[in-house]
Amino acid sequence: MSEETSAELKRGLEGVLVAESSLSEIDGDEGRLVYRGYNIDDLARNASYEEVLYLLWHGELPTRALLDAFRGGMAAERELDPEVLNAIECLARADESPMAMIRTVTSMLSAYDPDAGDGDVQSIPANVRKGRRITAKLPTALAAFDRLRRGEEPVAPNPDLAHAANFLYMLNGEEPDDVAAKTFDMALVLHADHGLNASTFAAMVTASTLADLHSAVTSAVGTLSGALHGGANQNVMRMLLEVDESTKDPLRWVQDALAEGRRVAGFGHRVYNVKDPRARILSERSQALGEASGDEKWFRYSEAVEEFMLEEKRIAPNVDFYSASMYYQMGIPIDIYTPIFVISRVGGWIAHVMEQWKDNRLIRPRARYVGPEHREFVPVGER
Amino acid sequence: MSEETSAELKRGLEGVLVAESSLSEIDGDEGRLVYRGYNIDDLARNASYEEVLYLLWHGELPTRALLDAFRGGMAAERELDPEVLNAIECLARADESPMAMIRTVTSMLSAYDPDAGDGDVQSIPANVRKGRRITAKLPTALAAFDRLRRGEEPVAPNPDLAHAANFLYMLNGEEPDDVAAKTFDMALVLHADHGLNASTFAAMVTASTLADLHSAVTSAVGTLSGALHGGANQNVMRMLLEVDESTKDPLRWVQDALAEGRRVAGFGHRVYNVKDPRARILSERSQALGEASGDEKWFRYSEAVEEFMLEEKRIAPNVDFYSASMYYQMGIPIDIYTPIFVISRVGGWIAHVMEQWKDNRLIRPRARYVGPEHREFVPVGER
Repeated sequence: MSEETSAELKRGLEGVLVAESSLSEIDGDEGRLVYRGYNIDDLARNASYEEVLYLLWHGELPTRALLDAFRGGMAAERELDPEVLNAIECLARADESPMAMIRTVTSMLSAYDPDAGDGDVQSIPANVRKGRRITAKLPTALAAFDRLRRGEEPVAPNPDLAHAANFLYMLNGEEPDDVAAKTFDMALVLHADHGLNASTFAAMVTASTLADLHSAVTSAVGTLSGALHGGANQNVMRMLLEVDESTKDPLRWVQDALAEGRRVAGFGHRVYNVKDPRARILSERSQALGEASGDEKWFRYSEAVEEFMLEEKRIAPNVDFYSASMYYQMGIPIDIYTPIFVISRVGGWIAHVMEQWKDNRLIRPRARYVGPEHREFVPVGER
Repeated sequence: MSEETSAELKRGLEGVLVAESSLSEIDGDEGRLVYRGYNIDDLARNASYEEVLYLLWHGELPTRALLDAFRGGMAAERELDPEVLNAIECLARADESPMAMIRTVTSMLSAYDPDAGDGDVQSIPANVRKGRRITAKLPTALAAFDRLRRGEEPVAPNPDLAHAANFLYMLNGEEPDDVAAKTFDMALVLHADHGLNASTFAAMVTASTLADLHSAVTSAVGTLSGALHGGANQNVMRMLLEVDESTKDPLRWVQDALAEGRRVAGFGHRVYNVKDPRARILSERSQALGEASGDEKWFRYSEAVEEFMLEEKRIAPNVDFYSASMYYQMGIPIDIYTPIFVISRVGGWIAHVMEQWKDNRLIRPRARYVGPEHREFVPVGER
């Protein structure tokens, strides 16, 4: 075991290369994010979430005909099995957290998926179908859960609406205006993939044993629920609300918070050394929503906090920082910001799992044993 | 990004040290497995599963008084919430696979856990309580599911029985004899921990974002379901049944299978270069069960396959190889061998997660981008 004990400990696996991927490229020094060679700015401004899903899963942007077929196929899969809807009602009644609900529902969907079972778990056509179903159904589950816990009836999906607009429709019971629909679609595009973040890596570890797609995506949902990953945007908004409730200038508020040893959410990223390119686009949308409503305070608070952190701490905002004020201005409940991250990132998770299965290898690192050696067993009666 | 692109690719993370652990030590050359300094042979022969759980979670073997309190606390948590039992009934009706059912139930348990919620996810006392509940309830879920799909009513847990005996009682509706109870208890002890296998590592990746214990254990269950991990013992038994159905001598059967290019399940391990110490003990129990029933054929087939593989292929059996014939002789349905692995290993997963949270670090490796560079975006209408 000399190899093991002499090796260097890499607790966070920082800088460890575990895969080759054609899905997304992050240049942390330039602040550049690319999906399959396309710059995230171009995609967010010009492509729909469905188009980006197609790109991630199939490698190329679709023609109009392929896109229409893909969209139609996905829209046809939005309905939930009555048993799943029933479970969502139970979970709403039990006051389950939205992320735990999405984790349970993702896991439960396999029971009603015609492609689940003992077949070839690595089959690409079957996984594209499973992936399409999971991606189509999670927004329905989230909207239904949120309505049920508010005492409202779920709204059935409208197959004529695009993926992003349909979610807002199912959540609110009315069709969103174009600004809201476009903004939400952009948010879905911006969150769809981001290299080997912890949730994507968890999906890959699970998939590496040849566990099925539902298992891999369920692992990823659970992993995203942590405060160090997807949970950050909710903390950003709670902070902005505190800023608003205080009578302080936002700059002053941050200064005081830092002096008290508090962590300011939404800043810094293990990969980016400059401003996250997604934060750049989201801040534009946050500003646009403020201008449209005539109330720009959430954008102003965010901007003030960003400037302060950059000058004083030399750290830039990440993707969570501006999605917070953006979702808030769209009237979305704070505790579903992370589940909304799920309904976008699920596309990336599925793409990474399919990529890995093209040439799978079990992922199994080692631990160095540092516990006691050679203890003699003493029966319970003699302890 | 020069650091990234020049680094060596470690696709399976072989030999990469990601943690220090005091939980289990594997010496692959000596064929030795140790839990917190105690040899697995001593523990399997002399300690109950509850005792080993206490050891893994608290670091020391319990005194009689501590053990009684721990056992009693766990036995009191075996009952399922009626909504969970209801979901199990739905999943049985939908003909869900047992591993997917256990994954969904593990996830769903958080909704009914009084310690789940927005509190400190890293709290050791809360996690010991949550861990005790999860570990106590999963056997109840598995037994209920198996009975429901057979058209039988679930059997309520009996708090007077030990963890292992109570599972067999809930599964079969009658108390097991001492040989069966002891054998099953040994199997639970032998499977409880094994360094950073893929499922344990998945639990750690999930926990590293500060996702909660239910998320981490759910990831682990899904990961264990893969054919390259926990699924192997089911494949071993299916192979032994094929041997039995053929009219061939077992040796001949293996020879022919290998000549046809088939993979013989239950052999080889990334960590052990010699016989897995767990297989050694399980083979004794498999033989003992054969002797007790007067039908030793399953043990004989297994022994013949082992000898052949060792002589011809120089590979030794792993833990899955003898658990197969052992569970089969105990009358346990083949497709719940892997869920039985869950109801033991869950103790190890929980121990690893608590160990990691003492000094947490986000686990986030990198991928090398090998996709296309700088593609120009063309709107869908112009493609």
